[in-house]
Amino acid sequence: MTAVRAFAATSATDPLAPGTFQRREVGPKDVLIEIAWAGICHSDIHTVRGDWGQVQYPLTVGHEIAGIVAQVGPEVTGHKVGDRVGVGCMVDSCRECANCAAGHEQYCHNGFTDTYNGVDRDGRITQGGYSTHIVVDEHFVLRVPEAIPFEKAAPLLCAGITTYSPLRHWNAGPGKKVAVVGLGGLGHMAVKLAHALGAEVTVLSQSLRKRDDGLRLGADHYYATSDPATFTELANTFDLIVNTVSAPIDMDAYLGLLALHGTIVSVGAPPEPVPVTLFTLFENRRSFAGSKIGGIAETQEMLDFCAEHGIAPEVEVIRADQINAAWERVLASDVRYRFVIDISTLPA
Amino acid sequence: MTAVRAFAATSATDPLAPGTFQRREVGPKDVLIEIAWAGICHSDIHTVRGDWGQVQYPLTVGHEIAGIVAQVGPEVTGHKVGDRVGVGCMVDSCRECANCAAGHEQYCHNGFTDTYNGVDRDGRITQGGYSTHIVVDEHFVLRVPEAIPFEKAAPLLCAGITTYSPLRHWNAGPGKKVAVVGLGGLGHMAVKLAHALGAEVTVLSQSLRKRDDGLRLGADHYYATSDPATFTELANTFDLIVNTVSAPIDMDAYLGLLALHGTIVSVGAPPEPVPVTLFTLFENRRSFAGSKIGGIAETQEMLDFCAEHGIAPEVEVIRADQINAAWERVLASDVRYRFVIDISTLPA
Repeated sequence: MTAVRAFAATSATDPLAPGTFQRREVGPKDVLIEIAWAGICHSDIHTVRGDWGQVQYPLTVGHEIAGIVAQVGPEVTGHKVGDRVGVGCMVDSCRECANCAAGHEQYCHNGFTDTYNGVDRDGRITQGGYSTHIVVDEHFVLRVPEAIPFEKAAPLLCAGITTYSPLRHWNAGPGKKVAVVGLGGLGHMAVKLAHALGAEVTVLSQSLRKRDDGLRLGADHYYATSDPATFTELANTFDLIVNTVSAPIDMDAYLGLLALHGTIVSVGAPPEPVPVTLFTLFENRRSFAGSKIGGIAETQEMLDFCAEHGIAPEVEVIRADQINAAWERVLASDVRYRFVIDISTLPA
Repeated sequence: MTAVRAFAATSATDPLAPGTFQRREVGPKDVLIEIAWAGICHSDIHTVRGDWGQVQYPLTVGHEIAGIVAQVGPEVTGHKVGDRVGVGCMVDSCRECANCAAGHEQYCHNGFTDTYNGVDRDGRITQGGYSTHIVVDEHFVLRVPEAIPFEKAAPLLCAGITTYSPLRHWNAGPGKKVAVVGLGGLGHMAVKLAHALGAEVTVLSQSLRKRDDGLRLGADHYYATSDPATFTELANTFDLIVNTVSAPIDMDAYLGLLALHGTIVSVGAPPEPVPVTLFTLFENRRSFAGSKIGGIAETQEMLDFCAEHGIAPEVEVIRADQINAAWERVLASDVRYRFVIDISTLPA
C-alpha cells in the first residue's frame, strides 16, 4: 500500500481539508502516477454535495489528472517510469461487453468505474486526483504529448474529451455550422476544438460579457441567449449544437435553431426530465441526444489532436489552500476557464 | 372550375355528409386527377375534431389519394391522361428554400401546403381526397407503378412514406436491429418496409393480440410492452426504434432499449411536451428524433421500392356510406390495417 496525501471532503458541507489515505499495491498491470496537476470540474462539487446520490466520506475527488509515472507493474507495456501521463473520469470497466470491446468504455454495459466515488474491483471506494499519487490499470492511463503544456493537460481529460467526442461523432468539420451553448470549462474547449476541426463556430451565451474571449478562442459568431431576437435570427441554422450547460434550458427554443437533420447534444444534465415538443423535432427532422466523455482510444486521439493543433485549455493555476475558494468561484461561474491545482502545494 | 362531389365534415362533431365544392381551373402545370381510392388516416379525424387547431367547415379531408389522370395543363411534362397517380400529404411548398431545393419539401422553411385544411396560393382552403377529383401541381403528383394493386396504393402516400423516410435516413438494413412501436396503419408499413430493407425487425405492441399478424407481416420478434420484463430483456438492443404511437409513451423506458448510438424516432406526436431524462440519453449516446412524411423524390423512391419488393398495405375497402363507422373503428384501433374508400361509391 502507498500512503498518499490529499485534500478531501469530510462531509457535504464542510470545506475540503488535508488528509491521507492508502492507495492499493501496484498490481501487474498497474501504473503508479505521481500527480502533478489536477483540474477542478463542476462534477467534483456536485458529487461532494450529494447532488448525484449518496457519498461515503471522506472522499477525495478530481478526475482531470496529469502526472509522471513513478512505478509500473511487471506486465505493463504501454508506459514507463518518467512518462508524462493522464487519467480522466474512468479507471476501469468490464472490458468484456460489446461497448468495451468496441472501445467505448464510457458506455460499458456493466458501468465503468468512476475515478472517484466509484467501487473498485477490491470493493473499495475510488479516490480521485486532489492527491499526490494514484494507481491505475494501464489501459486507463493516457500518454500526454510533450507539445501540451503539462499544467494544461489535466482539463483535457474531462472537459476536452467530453466535447471532442460528440464533435467527432457528429462530424463537426469544414462546411458544418456548430453552436456551443455556454462558455465555461467545457464550452471554451468545445469552441477551440470545433474551430480546429474546421467548423464555423457560434457561441450562444447568456450575455455578451465574454464575447471578446469567445472570438479569441476561435468562435466566428457570438450571440446572447437573453436576447429573444437570437432565436429568430438563428432559426434553422446549425448542424450541431453542443449544450454544455447543466442547468435546465428551454430545449424547444434551442431545437428551433437546428437546420435540416441537425442534432443538439447535451453533455451536462439537470437531474429533472427535459420536456421536448415533438412538433419541434418534426421540423428539419431534428434530434436531441446525450453524450458522455469519450472512450480511451478516442481520448488518446484527442490528446494527440490537441498537441498537433496547439490546443490547450485556458487555466488558472492555484495552490491547494485555494481549492475551497476556487470551488466558490466555480459555483459563481467566475473562472476563465478551468482551475488547475498544483499538487506539489499539498500540505506535507 | 370543376364541381366535385365529396364526403365532407360540416363541424367538429357531426358525421361526415355528402356535398359538393369547386376545384380550381387546371393551370399550366396542373394535373386533374379522377380519384379512385382514398385512405383514411388518423390525422383526418384529428383535424376535423379540431385537435390540431381551428378548422373552417365544410372541410373535405383525405391525404392518401390514388387516381387516374383526367386532364393535364399545357406545361405538364411528367404525367399524361390515363396514368395511375397518387397524391399524399402535400400539394405545394415554396420551392425556393434550402430544404425545398434539396428535395425535402416536407421541411419547407415557409411551410408546405397541406393537402387539406391548408391555404393554397389562391388563398382558398385546400380540400382533400374524400372527393371525386383533385387538381394538383404536377411536382406533387406521384407515379403509381403497375405492380402495386391500385386500391392499396393510397395508404402508401402517408403511412408508407412516413415510415420509409426515417428507416432510410437511419440506414435500416442488413445487420441493423429495428423495433416498431405500435402495429397500426403506420406500424404495419414500418414492419413490412424494415423487413424488405433487410433489418431484423421487432414489434413492440401493447399486447400479444396481433402477434401472428406481426410475424406474418415480416417481424422477427414480437413483444408486449404491457409486460415490464420486455424492457429489461431488450435493454440496449436496438439501433433504431420507430415510434408510430401518437399517444404519450414513457419515452425514457423506450430509450433504454437503444444500443450504442441508437435513435428512437417518433412519427406521431402527442400535443404535450415529452419528458426525457438526460442520464438515459447519456448511456449509449442515444438520440431522440422526430420525422415527418418524406420528400417528393423519396416518396417516388418508396413507391418504386414497394413495387419492386411486392409490398403493399393490408387494407379494408369500404363504401362512402361506411366512412363514419370506419372513423369510429379507427378511434377504437379496430382496423387491420388501413381503411380505403372506394370513391366510385360517393353519392351522385
